[in-house]
Amino acid sequence: MEILSTNPIEDGFYMPAEFSEHYGCILIWPHRRDSWQNGAYAARQAFAMLIELIADSEKVIVCARYDDYDEVRRLLSPRIRVVEMSSDDSWARDVAPTFVTDGHDIRGIDWGFNAWGGLYDGLYFPWDKDNKMARKLCDLIDKDCYDCRDFILEGGSIHTDGEGTLLTTEECLLSKGRNPDMTKQEIEVKLCNTLGVKKIIWLKRGIFNDETNGHVDNICAFTAPGEVVLAWTDDKNDPQYEISSECLDILENTTDAKGRKIKVHKLPLPEPVYVTDQDCAGLDYMNGEPTRIPGERLAASYVNFYISNRTVIVPQFGDENDEKAVEILKQLFPQRKVIGLKTEKCLLSKDILIGGGNIHCITQQIPVFNA
Amino acid sequence: MEILSTNPIEDGFYMPAEFSEHYGCILIWPHRRDSWQNGAYAARQAFAMLIELIADSEKVIVCARYDDYDEVRRLLSPRIRVVEMSSDDSWARDVAPTFVTDGHDIRGIDWGFNAWGGLYDGLYFPWDKDNKMARKLCDLIDKDCYDCRDFILEGGSIHTDGEGTLLTTEECLLSKGRNPDMTKQEIEVKLCNTLGVKKIIWLKRGIFNDETNGHVDNICAFTAPGEVVLAWTDDKNDPQYEISSECLDILENTTDAKGRKIKVHKLPLPEPVYVTDQDCAGLDYMNGEPTRIPGERLAASYVNFYISNRTVIVPQFGDENDEKAVEILKQLFPQRKVIGLKTEKCLLSKDILIGGGNIHCITQQIPVFNA
Repeated sequence: MEILSTNPIEDGFYMPAEFSEHYGCILIWPHRRDSWQNGAYAARQAFAMLIELIADSEKVIVCARYDDYDEVRRLLSPRIRVVEMSSDDSWARDVAPTFVTDGHDIRGIDWGFNAWGGLYDGLYFPWDKDNKMARKLCDLIDKDCYDCRDFILEGGSIHTDGEGTLLTTEECLLSKGRNPDMTKQEIEVKLCNTLGVKKIIWLKRGIFNDETNGHVDNICAFTAPGEVVLAWTDDKNDPQYEISSECLDILENTTDAKGRKIKVHKLPLPEPVYVTDQDCAGLDYMNGEPTRIPGERLAASYVNFYISNRTVIVPQFGDENDEKAVEILKQLFPQRKVIGLKTEKCLLSKDILIGGGNIHCITQQIPVFNA
Repeated sequence: MEILSTNPIEDGFYMPAEFSEHYGCILIWPHRRDSWQNGAYAARQAFAMLIELIADSEKVIVCARYDDYDEVRRLLSPRIRVVEMSSDDSWARDVAPTFVTDGHDIRGIDWGFNAWGGLYDGLYFPWDKDNKMARKLCDLIDKDCYDCRDFILEGGSIHTDGEGTLLTTEECLLSKGRNPDMTKQEIEVKLCNTLGVKKIIWLKRGIFNDETNGHVDNICAFTAPGEVVLAWTDDKNDPQYEISSECLDILENTTDAKGRKIKVHKLPLPEPVYVTDQDCAGLDYMNGEPTRIPGERLAASYVNFYISNRTVIVPQFGDENDEKAVEILKQLFPQRKVIGLKTEKCLLSKDILIGGGNIHCITQQIPVFNA
């Protein structure tokens, strides 16, 4: 693995859309007892089901800590590749490399990672194991790696259409815990140079109470070039209404890198999902403090789906909009099977959501490559 | 990775000779302070030089503990693939899988590993990290794995010509610390079924004072089908003389699986190499006991070379036979460059030898595959 200090754009590399063809997908086995309920046992079932669903369309690599390897190997089917890798938590979207392609080969980008805000408003400390994963994942798949560790970015805070347009939020990228010494313009230049984009659409804020400082991947996602889904509520008393309306306004009054108007599909939100006493009983404290408080509103959203080569896998919350969200996505992804992540007995997405994110947050696609 | 409980021979798989074409080679970065001098810093230089030499002819995968990854990545060239993997020590020959091939694809064999004798006369405790590596290395390279953990075997205790013949020693394979409940005949059957061989040549003992219970890879190795090198001394007062003579007698009075007589090339041993006070000063104790004692004779032998696709890399001890050993191997490997592992300043092989083995012991080849 060559560690590169050039800009991907100079080398002819750019970030493809998630709906472009994948080689595979990376996930990290959950283990953190203050993130995941019941010693992470609750989340395991959801991760395992998701992993197997993704593996129906593409190669899946699961990173497991040394202590978890044997168990993960036992739980997952042989087609899954399980590798030992240390991590602080399990958010592959944010700690695995963002991959770029030149149409033939791929390379990874190793961003700086500081647990969503570092010492300012980060979610755990330390985060050194997570911050080392992107580079190690490039080594693992034997691909070169751009060293962008001087720039704090998580994969969940960006979405691209693969045709020059990037979606992000000011709430996250301009947060004080990320790159406080950079101006918005400097951040734009960095994003353009590393991701090979020409136009950045800045939404203001992400989902209400999203502890990632409003990652875009929970509120708005490309479904095709020029088309997005936007998390939506019609309830004007919900603080989310103002946030989503603001996004809609921005999206309807801009064009993408190709000069196209953006077609916005509203994806209804579920009724607010709150942390229960029982949820809290299953979570360890972190440094003597609770990580969740009963009554806390979680950032539940159907937008946090994952697009695999042949499926779209969607969070489900036991809400009447579960089905509706799946139906809307079926219209938008006619070539793919759209699957809600649930079993008859379990609302698996809540088991992931309690950790602070959802399906998109725990996955990172690897684009297809020839070399 | 499929975990298989069939016998490789039933599936048409066999162990190819080391001089057959490789995909690459696995090594494990040294870290154990009671095995390697000066906090393993002395050995690092030797490992790094060896790794780069091998990488001139084939892919090299280096397993590094979490704590070592960054440093190893920095020290080694980009063409080397460095992966995180926990280990107890650094003997890839004995803890990495033994690979078998059907001529197209390869699979690994995951033998039981108990640190060369387990609780009977093993060299360290615990050995659980080492014992898990073979399986994880198969997962890493995405190849299926035979579960042979019920049988204790180290890769260093066997050599094959790839044409049906296996070399081993009774001292090791019949040792009380390996498989004491199996008869010699049962062990033969196991070796034939797993390695796809038809004839086993049993030498009696390995190199004098070899703490592996006389691994064959330090005393005798195939250089071609029907041809071996045998570690040799003409000094009748050296206890090694009787051991080597016994081996010669066995080799000269047997035939291989193809019915050929074995051509034996004597490879002179260096003058005995002893542990010095200074060596001991650089080694941590293990459980309050020294791992080496000044004056202890080390199992130095030129037979512990590694055959890569284009080179043969040979231990060097600052002995007058260093050059002679290289010259003999040049005659035997006319297609390969034969290289002594040393620099002008350092006898790197001693830095490896102090750990208890040499070049062959810290390498494990991965045969070439198409699939």
